[in-house]
Amino acid sequence: MKDKVVLAYSGGLDTSFCAKYLSVEKGLEVYTAIANTGGFGKEELETIEKKAYELGSAKHVTLDVTDTYYEKSIKYMVFGNVLRNNTYPISVSSERIFQAIAIIEYAKKIGAKYVAHGSTGAGNDQVRFDLTFEVLAPDIKILTPTRDLVLTRQEEIDYLKKHGVEADWSKMAYSINKGLWGTSIGGKETLTSDKTLPESAYPSQLTEQGEREITLDFVEGELKGVDGKRYFNTVEAIRDLEAIASKYAIGRDMHIGDTIIGIKGRVGFEAAAPMIIIKAHQMLEKHTLTKWQMYWKEQLSTWYGMFLHESLYLDPVMRDIEKFLESTQASVSGKVIVKLRPYQFVLVGIDSPYDLMKSDFGEYGEMNKAWTADDVKGFTKILGTSLKIYNSVNKKY
Amino acid sequence: MKDKVVLAYSGGLDTSFCAKYLSVEKGLEVYTAIANTGGFGKEELETIEKKAYELGSAKHVTLDVTDTYYEKSIKYMVFGNVLRNNTYPISVSSERIFQAIAIIEYAKKIGAKYVAHGSTGAGNDQVRFDLTFEVLAPDIKILTPTRDLVLTRQEEIDYLKKHGVEADWSKMAYSINKGLWGTSIGGKETLTSDKTLPESAYPSQLTEQGEREITLDFVEGELKGVDGKRYFNTVEAIRDLEAIASKYAIGRDMHIGDTIIGIKGRVGFEAAAPMIIIKAHQMLEKHTLTKWQMYWKEQLSTWYGMFLHESLYLDPVMRDIEKFLESTQASVSGKVIVKLRPYQFVLVGIDSPYDLMKSDFGEYGEMNKAWTADDVKGFTKILGTSLKIYNSVNKKY
Amino acid sequence: MKDKVVLAYSGGLDTSFCAKYLSVEKGLEVYTAIANTGGFGKEELETIEKKAYELGSAKHVTLDVTDTYYEKSIKYMVFGNVLRNNTYPISVSSERIFQAIAIIEYAKKIGAKYVAHGSTGAGNDQVRFDLTFEVLAPDIKILTPTRDLVLTRQEEIDYLKKHGVEADWSKMAYSINKGLWGTSIGGKETLTSDKTLPESAYPSQLTEQGEREITLDFVEGELKGVDGKRYFNTVEAIRDLEAIASKYAIGRDMHIGDTIIGIKGRVGFEAAAPMIIIKAHQMLEKHTLTKWQMYWKEQLSTWYGMFLHESLYLDPVMRDIEKFLESTQASVSGKVIVKLRPYQFVLVGIDSPYDLMKSDFGEYGEMNKAWTADDVKGFTKILGTSLKIYNSVNKKY
Amino acid sequence: MKDKVVLAYSGGLDTSFCAKYLSVEKGLEVYTAIANTGGFGKEELETIEKKAYELGSAKHVTLDVTDTYYEKSIKYMVFGNVLRNNTYPISVSSERIFQAIAIIEYAKKIGAKYVAHGSTGAGNDQVRFDLTFEVLAPDIKILTPTRDLVLTRQEEIDYLKKHGVEADWSKMAYSINKGLWGTSIGGKETLTSDKTLPESAYPSQLTEQGEREITLDFVEGELKGVDGKRYFNTVEAIRDLEAIASKYAIGRDMHIGDTIIGIKGRVGFEAAAPMIIIKAHQMLEKHTLTKWQMYWKEQLSTWYGMFLHESLYLDPVMRDIEKFLESTQASVSGKVIVKLRPYQFVLVGIDSPYDLMKSDFGEYGEMNKAWTADDVKGFTKILGTSLKIYNSVNKKY
Repeated sequence: MKDKVVLAYSGGLDTSFCAKYLSVEKGLEVYTAIANTGGFGKEELETIEKKAYELGSAKHVTLDVTDTYYEKSIKYMVFGNVLRNNTYPISVSSERIFQAIAIIEYAKKIGAKYVAHGSTGAGNDQVRFDLTFEVLAPDIKILTPTRDLVLTRQEEIDYLKKHGVEADWSKMAYSINKGLWGTSIGGKETLTSDKTLPESAYPSQLTEQGEREITLDFVEGELKGVDGKRYFNTVEAIRDLEAIASKYAIGRDMHIGDTIIGIKGRVGFEAAAPMIIIKAHQMLEKHTLTKWQMYWKEQLSTWYGMFLHESLYLDPVMRDIEKFLESTQASVSGKVIVKLRPYQFVLVGIDSPYDLMKSDFGEYGEMNKAWTADDVKGFTKILGTSLKIYNSVNKKY
Repeated sequence: MKDKVVLAYSGGLDTSFCAKYLSVEKGLEVYTAIANTGGFGKEELETIEKKAYELGSAKHVTLDVTDTYYEKSIKYMVFGNVLRNNTYPISVSSERIFQAIAIIEYAKKIGAKYVAHGSTGAGNDQVRFDLTFEVLAPDIKILTPTRDLVLTRQEEIDYLKKHGVEADWSKMAYSINKGLWGTSIGGKETLTSDKTLPESAYPSQLTEQGEREITLDFVEGELKGVDGKRYFNTVEAIRDLEAIASKYAIGRDMHIGDTIIGIKGRVGFEAAAPMIIIKAHQMLEKHTLTKWQMYWKEQLSTWYGMFLHESLYLDPVMRDIEKFLESTQASVSGKVIVKLRPYQFVLVGIDSPYDLMKSDFGEYGEMNKAWTADDVKGFTKILGTSLKIYNSVNKKY
Repeated sequence: MKDKVVLAYSGGLDTSFCAKYLSVEKGLEVYTAIANTGGFGKEELETIEKKAYELGSAKHVTLDVTDTYYEKSIKYMVFGNVLRNNTYPISVSSERIFQAIAIIEYAKKIGAKYVAHGSTGAGNDQVRFDLTFEVLAPDIKILTPTRDLVLTRQEEIDYLKKHGVEADWSKMAYSINKGLWGTSIGGKETLTSDKTLPESAYPSQLTEQGEREITLDFVEGELKGVDGKRYFNTVEAIRDLEAIASKYAIGRDMHIGDTIIGIKGRVGFEAAAPMIIIKAHQMLEKHTLTKWQMYWKEQLSTWYGMFLHESLYLDPVMRDIEKFLESTQASVSGKVIVKLRPYQFVLVGIDSPYDLMKSDFGEYGEMNKAWTADDVKGFTKILGTSLKIYNSVNKKY
Repeated sequence: MKDKVVLAYSGGLDTSFCAKYLSVEKGLEVYTAIANTGGFGKEELETIEKKAYELGSAKHVTLDVTDTYYEKSIKYMVFGNVLRNNTYPISVSSERIFQAIAIIEYAKKIGAKYVAHGSTGAGNDQVRFDLTFEVLAPDIKILTPTRDLVLTRQEEIDYLKKHGVEADWSKMAYSINKGLWGTSIGGKETLTSDKTLPESAYPSQLTEQGEREITLDFVEGELKGVDGKRYFNTVEAIRDLEAIASKYAIGRDMHIGDTIIGIKGRVGFEAAAPMIIIKAHQMLEKHTLTKWQMYWKEQLSTWYGMFLHESLYLDPVMRDIEKFLESTQASVSGKVIVKLRPYQFVLVGIDSPYDLMKSDFGEYGEMNKAWTADDVKGFTKILGTSLKIYNSVNKKY
């Protein structure tokens, strides 16, 4: 009986090559699996399944982990307003972790001896797959033919042809990675430092010209309403918002970041819904959280995003941070009004029962009932005491 | 001989009232002074001087500290990419500190027994003035008639009239505070949580419709060139960039923040040049600094901005942070290309000899010369070791 | 009918003066209350009660909040290994907060119009009482006769005598503040910078000379066993450990810290059990937590201790931090062996099923099964990549 | 002509094996070098040199980098009060970095094609050597025979014997690593979690029984005087203090920490002078720095220690942190009084012109001249405002 290998299969050239290679050269029974975190549509998944069987997959499965991905990752990225390097909503990289988890759990379930992925030796994804696999199943051996053989695309195509597999493997001008939390775009401009992507490189094109005001409803930090429609499942809310906002070509930018392996990388992305959700959520927090809640949320969220990006999601400190973030969201409920415009959106304002601007204790810029001028004088005197002492002792100024 | 008081005089109703009141009721010799941190033009300053003498000022001085303000504050805010609450370039609040310092130094120089300002008891500015005065000159007594008397505008107008001072004190619909590092705008919408300022409230109006690409040159973190023109004095570069960019109505937003006195405040602002400079500078840093330089810069800069805003500029930790920030800027030199559009700008890219993306050691997404697939496998294995151990001991997943 | 005032009564001169003064001069019905957070013994409380009635208290109550204090404060200080300025287990200051909460809740319960405390205008306690009272009951007015009148001890004694109250009010050479989490000691040496307290100033004296080894059992971060004896209530375990360890004169030190009001203060303390518990707990964590759990715990705990000390316990960020800390303790269970010696203790080691040093994946300093020399070479190569690039671009070294 | 290899030579079995192996099997011209960071005495170095030539070294050099090590590392560890995991003065690990730098610079100077070290594949040192070598000289190839061949001690001894080298290679019960900044001790107890080292394992033995008071003089953070004797070179001061204090068996402890390669390690150490210097320096800072200087110093120093330990000393963020730390030390001058006792020391107090406890602005615990009771009331009211608002909006308590 042949040993089983579970192959993370995407339908692309690299993993198609792997499927054939693992079966022919390694004599393994190949189980193809695709973990969908929300980036693949039904038709696409069917096409991939069909391809898998054509390549001789013993069994192909689609592991739908979209809701898990939202519950275990997107939710916390929103709680934390996570934008890597102040820009990037960690669109694709966080999905890889949950794909890797789904794949390795499947491998364990069917008693596979091997697990395989098609990442090359140049990027972050290989680390995400390898590391997650090793932590969760140290006994399952990892195979990565494309990384090890370092073949050209043509060599892979020739190999497949030789084994009777023909398909249109022509490469697109831009490599697109679509996910629930944004789409990343690589191409010749992203290999330079001084050029940005052309308009045409973005999957979503500008089709709306005017302005449109929409409202987002948050309940304890989660998006639960878009323009009056209520959602039980936030995944659906994200999709509907994306459908509305992507027509305005919102949320496009370039991310320049440090890869796990230490080099700088540059990638374009579009992420209309994620950018709007994060910024709207953050504005709601400015009204409902205390200054120090915001301060510490930022500290921990920056770290959370970094570890998610760098494939260290399984460190228990991440669970601890999630508890912190969850605790902060108790009062982050209310409506946020957003104005959409071509290429841009404006946060109009918020309405929340937990709005700390609405209180009986004084309003900014107005004389108030809660304290007197003398109170502020006393406050300022005491606030300045340590500096007064420092200055008197050190004669600095 | 009468005791001297130095009054921070702005030409407005509150400080005009103070001038008269301090002279008439307190029997003091009033020295009016205005500290210009770059927000006032020549004509405006002349008008203010004229007004001061009409009110009976013994001597009026304009203290120009624009360059000092740049050197001691804006420079570091750019080094640190300081945006309070991720939004606000700390436009006006940081200027207050340097105005306060200039005023109190002048008071010490002329041997004044008192110093006065016209801030009310409801905002941040009173704390900035009081605290700075007290730390730098604990022996000079602070007088604040408007804060202490809590008069209405009409009462102040009547008092001035009674003493022979008549002027047009009519209030504008929006209170505008213009400074070198941005303009803040308060009005009826900023007292609510759910409305944004109308287009007409902004001093700069959209007058350019197309797109324009400009380049910014940074030398060790400082803006030293705009569109090919070189500047010795960055203050001039900021002004020229503002003149170009404000026509696109860029850099408008609402700041919701925690005031020093503990309540939440909301204020609109426009800051075309500051927003472009900070974002361009930050992109240049993404190419030229290491990951951990950026990480720690962000930590320290957030704090720096907070203390600047909260009138704790004189804490010696601020000097320590400045040293850190300065040290990081050694390689932050190069050109940044920016595309201006109505209401928005796009960072196109950068060109720098210190660009860490340009090296012989491998390029993102491409197979490279500096390491092998086996190196990454070894790296990943070791990187995952602690999590593997944790998981094996705790059986968490 | 007279208005009610609840007075936080300690039996000392200041609060005795307050009791009489509030009744005689203010015409209030005085309800005395003492909130015991574990520092007072039964007899002491009875003496205080007797004194209260002699002063004319309408009703005296002892509010025992020892368990609450442990559950809401000590527990988290242990989770966080909180030592202020790396030295001080925040012995007395954290107790004040919970005393204040108990007092103000009692005042609300009996419908008091006023609440009073005897703190002077020079220390931290006034802020802790005032702030807690104001936040939890903004409508109850705070009265502080001793602070407002600034009387000498003799004036207070004379006043009491005049109203028929005589007692021995002689002042001790050292002011001692005993609590469950340590005892603070003030005296003439603590007013200087260059002297430490004499041996005799410490309430606990060295009575044991040899060495003794004891074991502490922790369950999810909480002390649940001392030398084999199991405890349901950790408060009892703390007391028993204190009884054993204080004979060795362990846990004495001087705390130099920043007061809430901005001046530096110096105070001696002894805290045998707290110091041993915190250090033992921390050693257990070094074996059972990941590097980054420890890193972030330290960040958040430092803050937690600061806010507790500075009377900001009620900020909701404190609840968020508690959630984080709680989450980290899931695997902090096991035995810690401690050797007691005069003035000192030594952490011998730990024994825990969650000990990350005990794993199949390799042991420190020994060649191991989990990776090869080549893996480490690969790891090191990738780990150094960013620095290699930086150095090649910047030619720094 | 043979290619040159520079071998980091310590005189031990592993590097002796390397010397012979590289010459015999690899046909290289072996240049032995030992970099002394202060841990080796003159005689020891002479013995090592003799051994090197016996093994056939083409040339042996002693690179004395003690002063460099102090200037570039110890100094900043003192500024930062660096104790890894709150315990360990990073005794040996930081020395390795400066040894590696000295070795690789020598290799570059003499045009070596190879550099070699004798670290095994199980510890941190291999990473420190490899990484430093690669960053500073990516073109020089690293050779590590002992790591690659994974030989037993006996196999190494046999190999040397075969090639005519005989010596006493018997292993000590405890492996001792002596350095200027402390001595680390490994042995059978350090491989367990529950035992501590026996008294006899420590190189320094308790020989003084009484108490002794000494004074340390710091000038801008650096130790420049011990018991009245002034030092130009702090290295000498450290040595003299160590000679005095080690007789009290001070500064012994166990360090449990995370190794660079992800496993937990445990090691004993003795570091009398480092522990006293760091704790004395820290106490001086408590008197002379502001609260926020101390807060941020701690943040940055923890990181500094971690990166030093983990061989990331060359990251430019370390230079930035050094600038910060340096800036904080301007006022850290004065005398610290320390009492030595068997196994322990007590910080008695400090005397400094920059002592912030000595000022005209009020003293802790005493009524003061700089503010009134009303000032504190005002302060407290404003300090509590945000919590009052939060509580009124959220009805939490």
